[in-house]
Amino acid sequence: MTRQELINLINRKKSFLCVGLDSDITKLPECVKSCDDPVFEFNKRIIDATLPYTVAYKPNLAFYESYGISGLLSLKKTMDYLHTKQNECFVIADAKRGDIGNTSKQYAKAFFTKEGDFDFDALTVAPYMGEDSVKPFLEYEGKWVILLALTSNKGSEDFQMFSSKDGERLFEKVLTKSQEWGNEENMMYVCGATKAEKFTQIRRLVPNHFLLVPGVGAQGGSLADVCKYGLNKDCGLLVNSSRGIIFADNSDNFDKVAGEKAKEMQQEMAQYL
Amino acid sequence: MTRQELINLINRKKSFLCVGLDSDITKLPECVKSCDDPVFEFNKRIIDATLPYTVAYKPNLAFYESYGISGLLSLKKTMDYLHTKQNECFVIADAKRGDIGNTSKQYAKAFFTKEGDFDFDALTVAPYMGEDSVKPFLEYEGKWVILLALTSNKGSEDFQMFSSKDGERLFEKVLTKSQEWGNEENMMYVCGATKAEKFTQIRRLVPNHFLLVPGVGAQGGSLADVCKYGLNKDCGLLVNSSRGIIFADNSDNFDKVAGEKAKEMQQEMAQYL
Repeated sequence: MTRQELINLINRKKSFLCVGLDSDITKLPECVKSCDDPVFEFNKRIIDATLPYTVAYKPNLAFYESYGISGLLSLKKTMDYLHTKQNECFVIADAKRGDIGNTSKQYAKAFFTKEGDFDFDALTVAPYMGEDSVKPFLEYEGKWVILLALTSNKGSEDFQMFSSKDGERLFEKVLTKSQEWGNEENMMYVCGATKAEKFTQIRRLVPNHFLLVPGVGAQGGSLADVCKYGLNKDCGLLVNSSRGIIFADNSDNFDKVAGEKAKEMQQEMAQYL
Repeated sequence: MTRQELINLINRKKSFLCVGLDSDITKLPECVKSCDDPVFEFNKRIIDATLPYTVAYKPNLAFYESYGISGLLSLKKTMDYLHTKQNECFVIADAKRGDIGNTSKQYAKAFFTKEGDFDFDALTVAPYMGEDSVKPFLEYEGKWVILLALTSNKGSEDFQMFSSKDGERLFEKVLTKSQEWGNEENMMYVCGATKAEKFTQIRRLVPNHFLLVPGVGAQGGSLADVCKYGLNKDCGLLVNSSRGIIFADNSDNFDKVAGEKAKEMQQEMAQYL
């Protein structure tokens, strides 16, 4: 999906909501547990209920890999289903990959081609290994790198705030340096909602890029703050909610409630657009 | 595997060689291509030929994920085979994972349990997200985190050498800070052979930890230099070679040649021990 297509989708749905499909099998409602593939059944119902209010889905690979091959088969079925809605949503593999160039090339194939079974639109990438670990992902037209910059967790303080003698912090260095490799047409950044006060500085460094913003909801970030400091002329935000939507309810109506939660967020978002 | 068991294995085989099973399907010899599962057949023959000279195997996940579910089935078969040799080798998932605590917990399950299908001894972890992204992996007894510190690739210069006002570089901060989370019984560090001149400083910060050293061979690092600056009283090194061993020959005898290459390295290693 191109940048313009994503912007059109946001304008059409009046939403920049991303739903995180972190479908932890131990938290699934009873009503799906007797299905052949409970995780896929759960995801399908969540997608059907939230799609009108949602521009992106983001399965986190960890929740599938933790059940081995069978977990990945559930993810493949979910992706096959999402591909039937392909002009309706942008799909992000939250996998935080990155390795030496020769190896990142293999990861790019894993996530961005049908041969790798999933064919995502975008992949989150960890920046620690630098240029040659990121560039192979940028060679796929219409595909996106979403580079970790300032994450939403407590541990983000440990290294991302590491500061040079000029006062430049590591996450700022990542934002600046990586613009030599990609651009606003093929690169986004992960910037956590729990750090909304830092968005002003982030927007100084990357005024036009899209930011993928986790941490609203269960992790405590505020949508209003994120929008106040993070929106740009093209919207420029994808705000993720996982647990706050997909596990909002545990009854037979879990999908209906998830749809309502997504709609609430969409309606708040529409006001900011 | 405990630290002492690993040291015993090294002393028994007089080797600290790790063979990287980066089994790129496009590089496999013709003679395995007609098998039902060429990647597994290749790996099995490489393992059989190199096991006497090798203390560790390290499949890089990218080379399996790039063929989707079918690639991961080849990896599972390889792991099932390696588990039949379990006192003979230490097995590392080179996957460079890491995410917020809640999610890293799922990755730990993916790599360190039978439920995740693989049950590795160790996992390479990317440090960018800090403490809560690393700690969940340390809760599994007998399992290891191998944290990226100074990698072997060109891009390692981009962020790992980022320097604070006190002259501390990011990779040094990673080595120091992470010792608050784990210890020499459950944590190792990735330190590239192409940076052997930095091993003196690395050993000042982590004198007792094991280091996993990629970059000897195809990437240009020297075993002699790595040993000169990196060995400690317990050996403290696992030196990896991938392409230099597994793709040393492309004929029907590829396994025999791989065994010879592994033996050459083992014999050089024996002199340094």
